[in-house]
Amino acid sequence: MDGTVLCAANHVPLTPISFLERAALVYPDRPAIVAASGRLSGAPPRTWRETRARCTRLAGALAGLGVARHDVVAVLAQNIPAMYELHFGIPMAGAVICALNSRLDATMASVLLQHSEPKVIFVDYALLDVAKEALSLVSKAAGARPPHVVLIKELLDKSPSPNDPQANERTSGAYLNSVATVLMNEMVGAPVYLWTVPMFHCNGWCLVWGVAAKAGTNVCLRKVTAAAIFDSIARHGVTHMGGAPTVLSMIVNAAAEERKPLPSGRPPVTVKAGGAPPLPQVLLRMEALGFLVIHGYGLTETYGPATVCAWKPEWDALPPEQRASVRSRQGLHHLGLVVDVKDPATMRSVPADGRAVGEVMLRGNTVMSGYYKDAAATAEALAGGWLRSGDLAVRHGDGYVKIVDRCKDTIISGGENISTIEVAAALFAHPAVAEAAVVGRPDEYWGETPCAFVKLRDGGGAGGSVGAEEVIAFCRARLPRYMAPRTVVFVAELPKTATGKVQKVALRERARAMGSISGSISRQQLGAGSESESGRGTRSQL
Amino acid sequence: MDGTVLCAANHVPLTPISFLERAALVYPDRPAIVAASGRLSGAPPRTWRETRARCTRLAGALAGLGVARHDVVAVLAQNIPAMYELHFGIPMAGAVICALNSRLDATMASVLLQHSEPKVIFVDYALLDVAKEALSLVSKAAGARPPHVVLIKELLDKSPSPNDPQANERTSGAYLNSVATVLMNEMVGAPVYLWTVPMFHCNGWCLVWGVAAKAGTNVCLRKVTAAAIFDSIARHGVTHMGGAPTVLSMIVNAAAEERKPLPSGRPPVTVKAGGAPPLPQVLLRMEALGFLVIHGYGLTETYGPATVCAWKPEWDALPPEQRASVRSRQGLHHLGLVVDVKDPATMRSVPADGRAVGEVMLRGNTVMSGYYKDAAATAEALAGGWLRSGDLAVRHGDGYVKIVDRCKDTIISGGENISTIEVAAALFAHPAVAEAAVVGRPDEYWGETPCAFVKLRDGGGAGGSVGAEEVIAFCRARLPRYMAPRTVVFVAELPKTATGKVQKVALRERARAMGSISGSISRQQLGAGSESESGRGTRSQL
Repeated sequence: MDGTVLCAANHVPLTPISFLERAALVYPDRPAIVAASGRLSGAPPRTWRETRARCTRLAGALAGLGVARHDVVAVLAQNIPAMYELHFGIPMAGAVICALNSRLDATMASVLLQHSEPKVIFVDYALLDVAKEALSLVSKAAGARPPHVVLIKELLDKSPSPNDPQANERTSGAYLNSVATVLMNEMVGAPVYLWTVPMFHCNGWCLVWGVAAKAGTNVCLRKVTAAAIFDSIARHGVTHMGGAPTVLSMIVNAAAEERKPLPSGRPPVTVKAGGAPPLPQVLLRMEALGFLVIHGYGLTETYGPATVCAWKPEWDALPPEQRASVRSRQGLHHLGLVVDVKDPATMRSVPADGRAVGEVMLRGNTVMSGYYKDAAATAEALAGGWLRSGDLAVRHGDGYVKIVDRCKDTIISGGENISTIEVAAALFAHPAVAEAAVVGRPDEYWGETPCAFVKLRDGGGAGGSVGAEEVIAFCRARLPRYMAPRTVVFVAELPKTATGKVQKVALRERARAMGSISGSISRQQLGAGSESESGRGTRSQL
Repeated sequence: MDGTVLCAANHVPLTPISFLERAALVYPDRPAIVAASGRLSGAPPRTWRETRARCTRLAGALAGLGVARHDVVAVLAQNIPAMYELHFGIPMAGAVICALNSRLDATMASVLLQHSEPKVIFVDYALLDVAKEALSLVSKAAGARPPHVVLIKELLDKSPSPNDPQANERTSGAYLNSVATVLMNEMVGAPVYLWTVPMFHCNGWCLVWGVAAKAGTNVCLRKVTAAAIFDSIARHGVTHMGGAPTVLSMIVNAAAEERKPLPSGRPPVTVKAGGAPPLPQVLLRMEALGFLVIHGYGLTETYGPATVCAWKPEWDALPPEQRASVRSRQGLHHLGLVVDVKDPATMRSVPADGRAVGEVMLRGNTVMSGYYKDAAATAEALAGGWLRSGDLAVRHGDGYVKIVDRCKDTIISGGENISTIEVAAALFAHPAVAEAAVVGRPDEYWGETPCAFVKLRDGGGAGGSVGAEEVIAFCRARLPRYMAPRTVVFVAELPKTATGKVQKVALRERARAMGSISGSISRQQLGAGSESESGRGTRSQL
């Protein structure tokens, strides 16, 4: 436009480093980092002035190691103060942070290190064994250039995952999503944020930077336990935290001796729930304990948080179960991007009828620019100008998105889509059920039937008071008949990935090995007859 | 970076229209606009759904009038609902909003219309007379293409300066500053914003869009009076408002019958003060009334708000006068830009010693891209890669910026810089002073001396109890001697511009006409002798 220019006065790359600069300038003496565990526990908090100075020194040290613009620097660490600082120090050196999941095994870690080719890797000494083994594997690879290893000295505990493809990122998306996330978390004044979300998960759901934008206080927690959570809330005046359903479960299932009363006379502790749809029962119990749960949804590819189930006052009056159900929806996009549910074939939005299922798709400035060194995967993920999430959802009448399943987790039985999440939710309502996962069991007649793997609470196991028939009857009372499990397998532990997610692939294999349950029945019903009783045979194991 | 792409999925122009879209999607039934006065007063609030629909229709109507991308659409209106909607409807049509100051006279309005060449102008019928006369002047100009005039039908009251050069803007700055402003105003939940800041001032200090980002409620107020403010707070549950010092004065000077108690049991009403440094005395009285004042500073060239005097808990314990003084500082930048105080000759930052004076300069993505059709002015304002504010300031030890004067308003007396604002503040501390402005009076010896123009409260005037000598003595007790006025002129009204700012040019002319006050004295002191007693002569008028 006539008269306008683009120059240093009005054009600066958006970067979350500016949050740190401002926090140190405006609030130099405000506590930035508190260690709730480890060697630094009990030490005075680090102020924003100190934090900025340390990050600047860190950036200088990286430059001294030859790290230059766009180089990758890896980190293998838990939620310790150094992990927080690396999220600033590395970008301040112009480099790209690649935060490895601390639960990775050595083999997976080595694969990621070979892919990302970091110049330097920072290792939490608690994770040194895994790192050593991974680096040994890297050094054996052809043409390997193993990174310079820096041991983080101040660390204590231990515990050991995939990396964060968009940690290799444009920083404007990080800036925009950090600010939006602060808004969506209703952070005012100086928030005190408890680090129950791993910082390696989408940069702590973008709040590594968001807390700096508010010059809040980061309470670092190496090991997330119910006792540590309640203790931190009481000791450090935590105002906000977040977590996957496992963290919420940890809180609601805490033993009496692990609990501490929440501080009174203050707004409730706000918990951002994400990572997977939380169970209504857990939400209700969180509410009863006095927490305010804000449920959101996001992907690594969207810098974490992308949608929020924005609460409306009229829902306060709903019966508890319904309130929890409403709260467990993924909701609608927050600022900076747009969410839609589309038929991936036609790219048309599905109707907002709560029934039509489509794929969750997103677009906006907080969507990743791509997968590092994987143009094909990038093209596939962003095909048609939308990020394909791989999650299946419906849109309710009010537009709110409700995820019904991962694409591949949906059970299709007799032409009906069955959400394994809804089946699992019904299972969780049973008082004896501790954990449950549902997969499709191949079926000659129905295509698939829901097959539940259930871990019972202590005392209620296979040899205990609860049997498969009772569990199935329980679900049938709560679900359309076709959705209730036809098979229930009691297990001591569910197989899990390094990130703590249930390994559905393994369960599907087990279910496949069982063969068809209803073959003979259905064929008998159809008058076809059959020798196969594999279904019943399997059920007799239960 | 390898593997990344730029496409529709991850790159969208940042625009505040997205706030409206989201508000209508997530909170369709939440009240968006309430008219606290005029024809719509008492009508049900317009919801966000309705507001979006109206804005969309408006954009369609503009297209029907031939308005195309980058065309300018002017608006001459007070803070009425339509004015709010035009801030979305015009950009939705791809056009550029040029909101004229409603206090303009016809001549100035015609100059601005000739400069901005709008295709369409929307006119509040209360301002129709001014608009008619201005348009008549435009039509007489050579090569004139007068705009299509649209009368806004729903308007009621009336009342009538410069326009907003950056209303012709890149929208990313608007997006970023709106979000930052919402954060700095500590808006949570659904804020209820009372429109005491004119929407034509930097788009209502960016909150036209900011309120939409929070899906809050806009309480539109055509005429700002103390009674209307107190009434709106009580009736509509106002949580936030803003205003120049005149609005704060209006509140603290309200008559008993105009006041209503502020709602109890709720957080205090937050008032963003800006436009000029507020007086400590006024801040104290606002505090006593129960308002929370957040002081900020900004320019039209920065989309309004650019700095905020971020409050620190340790200041709560300061004595009231000192607390108010701390609160009246301009503080430090909020998110999205950087403020500095520099020597304009060397471009070096002045030391943070509270004494060294430099020019306030800003840079960042929320700085204007330039003055419309004035490349020379743009180049001058952005010279050296910083926006030159034209305001003089010091930096205190904590980095906080304190404006001491407009460049040209500084009095230089005996080689000392005197802040006319500080002198005026001393004057305001006198209980009989209602308004005051200070300019330099030319002086043969000192160069200039401070000359005060004072409007007294009813009953304390020139014929009343207060004389010039008393006022001067009062100031000398509070200021370094060289800073106290040497001349006090009592006036019935201070001359003001259409925007309500004191016309210092006019006052300087008057002061100049008085001649040198201290000529003879100083020369006598110097043993030089003189016939001139103009200084005393002027003082004898007081």
